[in-house]
Amino acid sequence: MVTGKNYIGNQLSAKGNKTFQTFNPELNKENSPIFTEATSEEIEEAVHLASEAFKEFSQVSGDKKAVFLNAIADEILALDDLLVQTYCSETGLPEGRAKGERGRTIGQLRSFANLVAEGSWVDATIDTADANREPQPKPDLRKFNFPLGPIVVFGASNFPLAYSTAGGDTAAAFAAGCPVIVKSHPMHAGTGELVASAIQKAAIKTNMPNGVFSNLNSSGIEVGQKLVSNAGVKAVGFTGSIKGGRALYDLAAKREEPIPVFAEMGSINPVVLLPKALENRAQDIAKTYAGSITLATGQFCTNPGLILGVKSEGLTSFIDTLSNEIVKINPSVMLHPNIKEGYLKNKEKVVSQDGVSVTANYSEVVQDNYAQQAVVTVKGEDFLQNTTLHLEVFGPFSMVIQCEDEKQLEHIISNLEGQLTGTIIADNNELETYRNIVHALQDRVGRIIFNGVPTGVEVCESMVHGGPYPASTDSRFTAVGVGSIKRWVRPFSYQDWPNNLLPDALKNENPLGILRSVNGIKSTGKID
Amino acid sequence: MVTGKNYIGNQLSAKGNKTFQTFNPELNKENSPIFTEATSEEIEEAVHLASEAFKEFSQVSGDKKAVFLNAIADEILALDDLLVQTYCSETGLPEGRAKGERGRTIGQLRSFANLVAEGSWVDATIDTADANREPQPKPDLRKFNFPLGPIVVFGASNFPLAYSTAGGDTAAAFAAGCPVIVKSHPMHAGTGELVASAIQKAAIKTNMPNGVFSNLNSSGIEVGQKLVSNAGVKAVGFTGSIKGGRALYDLAAKREEPIPVFAEMGSINPVVLLPKALENRAQDIAKTYAGSITLATGQFCTNPGLILGVKSEGLTSFIDTLSNEIVKINPSVMLHPNIKEGYLKNKEKVVSQDGVSVTANYSEVVQDNYAQQAVVTVKGEDFLQNTTLHLEVFGPFSMVIQCEDEKQLEHIISNLEGQLTGTIIADNNELETYRNIVHALQDRVGRIIFNGVPTGVEVCESMVHGGPYPASTDSRFTAVGVGSIKRWVRPFSYQDWPNNLLPDALKNENPLGILRSVNGIKSTGKID
Repeated sequence: MVTGKNYIGNQLSAKGNKTFQTFNPELNKENSPIFTEATSEEIEEAVHLASEAFKEFSQVSGDKKAVFLNAIADEILALDDLLVQTYCSETGLPEGRAKGERGRTIGQLRSFANLVAEGSWVDATIDTADANREPQPKPDLRKFNFPLGPIVVFGASNFPLAYSTAGGDTAAAFAAGCPVIVKSHPMHAGTGELVASAIQKAAIKTNMPNGVFSNLNSSGIEVGQKLVSNAGVKAVGFTGSIKGGRALYDLAAKREEPIPVFAEMGSINPVVLLPKALENRAQDIAKTYAGSITLATGQFCTNPGLILGVKSEGLTSFIDTLSNEIVKINPSVMLHPNIKEGYLKNKEKVVSQDGVSVTANYSEVVQDNYAQQAVVTVKGEDFLQNTTLHLEVFGPFSMVIQCEDEKQLEHIISNLEGQLTGTIIADNNELETYRNIVHALQDRVGRIIFNGVPTGVEVCESMVHGGPYPASTDSRFTAVGVGSIKRWVRPFSYQDWPNNLLPDALKNENPLGILRSVNGIKSTGKID
Repeated sequence: MVTGKNYIGNQLSAKGNKTFQTFNPELNKENSPIFTEATSEEIEEAVHLASEAFKEFSQVSGDKKAVFLNAIADEILALDDLLVQTYCSETGLPEGRAKGERGRTIGQLRSFANLVAEGSWVDATIDTADANREPQPKPDLRKFNFPLGPIVVFGASNFPLAYSTAGGDTAAAFAAGCPVIVKSHPMHAGTGELVASAIQKAAIKTNMPNGVFSNLNSSGIEVGQKLVSNAGVKAVGFTGSIKGGRALYDLAAKREEPIPVFAEMGSINPVVLLPKALENRAQDIAKTYAGSITLATGQFCTNPGLILGVKSEGLTSFIDTLSNEIVKINPSVMLHPNIKEGYLKNKEKVVSQDGVSVTANYSEVVQDNYAQQAVVTVKGEDFLQNTTLHLEVFGPFSMVIQCEDEKQLEHIISNLEGQLTGTIIADNNELETYRNIVHALQDRVGRIIFNGVPTGVEVCESMVHGGPYPASTDSRFTAVGVGSIKRWVRPFSYQDWPNNLLPDALKNENPLGILRSVNGIKSTGKID
């Protein structure tokens, strides 16, 4: 069922000569399917079809888009074991994780289906006319959210389902009314193709226009670059490294018509340990964090890579316990030899910096592609002076910063690069006395967590998965939750438009029964 | 009362050597005040103060921000005749326009005051915890809008009040909780300073932190470039030319930390004349448009610079009447000799292109800085082949495109650059048969108007003033209406945060009584 071909709208296509295979990191060998990289011609065709499809898809009702999204979910479930096995063979991740991530992906698709079936997400806003207003009559104005056009989605290496082919970016784009072209991630091209086949089936079954979806294979960066540079593409969603995300952002900004790139990139997710919490329960916190740091071999974008506290007995106890506990955990496999190589390289780079002490380093021999976890510590001053220490080490690794005092702690936080999350570990009433720390952290992150761990991104309306650069390229949007649809829409106004020709969301009768703002008042009613 | 100095927070400052004066286009001579351009040191100081002020201002309550915004409005009104006279002397615009624009500016400030006093604009969204959820407990997540940080605002040449110092960008930024640094427009630096003095007074009277506002003079582009490149600046608002806006966008995109630039740039605001309307009332439409094209000497960003119709007797009659009527209108003065020069240059450039026929050109001698209105026509094919004809001619000028047929009309619309507005002139039931035209136009504009003129931008919630590039650099936002606040905020989530330390908007008790989304249900109630 994995053909290795590109999905160009409703057709399979493999016109190119460049091929590649995915890799099983657990077995340390290539998987058998051979994927054909998309050619320039195939890229052009996918964009052309998407632009044509947009004319129809942009006008499709919320109900029909909901049917499409639910059909995608159904078709993904119908792939059953084949999908789970392919997923595991391309990532080394266990079956439980595959099924959990599939559940999350299905959940996302259905939550967007519910959103657009209900319909109020378009933010319909109506100001009715007043012909008698002086000095000039007031026109009738009606605004709603309208889709941007074809979107290109780059899948993430570490979430082959939830942040890839039919992941959050794609689900949000379809919900918005935007066709999607996926630049399939080369590390899990088989999983990607299976999901693409599910989307293609769903699109055909629910009568969506040909070109509403395409899936293009690539082993390098050229296909992605060509897509982002193509004039027919109107926005980009990306999850991955800072280097990759920034390169796409730069490319998009240089276009004759610049387009929005929402890239969710790296983050070291600072965790601040306040004094009382350290005094009361340093060891418990350390045990919890030994688990969080090594979860999924540290391959989460919310992995706690930076832990900060003021020098104290409690902090020393935390470091000792964390270091002892973390080496008790059995190492696990990384997604790909390239990811393992990157982990080793970046860990080595950080460890070799002046002032860095290694307090834990799993030293037993491990299988190929397995990662040995590590913890290091450094003084606040050294961290401030050396931005190499701010580098994300993608993997089961964390750095503890021992600050001289609270002032230095606040200063370090204020000068951190933008982050997806920040966590504060505090005991009763302690938080209140550290408002400056909280505000400094708030200014640097998209989500702030009290007495928890940053790993685990709840999919709900109130989640923010994003943050100041470089956590994302635009902190004004979240990549997770139904609010992420806002990345792919623009407000659009009708002035004095005939009622019968307005979209249903804006008609006087309010046929969709949605919540609207009418002359400043929220209402689900009709306009007389 | 015009000192010519920079306003750096609560201080006046003039450390530089570079000075300039504004110009009275009606009298054709310089105005007397001498303005001192801001130095690098002054720029740094303004940004430093703004960054410090942000720590406090970002946490200020909606009520207090409302008092600040209303105080600005009061202080602007208190400037009375001095402001009106300065405005007129720096623009050539009549007193009525000055007062009208002041009213609009005051209205904008007060509408943002109302918005933040009411408070629901923060889009508070709450998902409560569920400790019993399987397989993992559900955390408590609460999201709201949080300000980005210091914003730089570039005033517009053609709206010294409503789109400048205390205009929409500044009002929205203050409402959001962002300090503002205005790069004052050199053509109306005196008007700018007066308004700056009103803001400074209001800030002091209402106890806002020092640095919440600064106003920097400049005659060239360097001050703006330094501001946009400064690491402390977190977003930019601009209204002006495509060249200027794009340069700032490029500069912001190249920063180590790229920042959002919302630039509202040029637009030629296509007007589509459908056949029946032309058949029934070509002359009436032409008379209306002769007025719209010359309104305020054509110096509106919504000026109808492009009129499209299919060749017909009606279109010929429209062109004849428009050409006859427009030359009956008395020419008026432009804002500045540079604007007049730009008008002449761009008009000349368009007129000299192959296939362009001049059907009206006011030929009598006019005063210095007055603009002679003109109308030209061109065939659809010529327009398609020559993008020089797509150029905005800022001034009392319009081009009528005679299309071969409906297909060519649709093709031309589909291939237009992005626009602020599109207008369709149609008679009963005719619109319904031209859905393709409507959809093509919808894809290219931010606002679509039925049987009206694009000039006149109603300030209300349902207005979109923005559109696909190059109408704006980000079509996902509007520059007018309270929704424009979204340019300057980002969503921010608290996870499992203690209720008493949450911002009021997110507390269980809902002390602000705002509309929130609680577990997916809209409610103004408390959470038990």
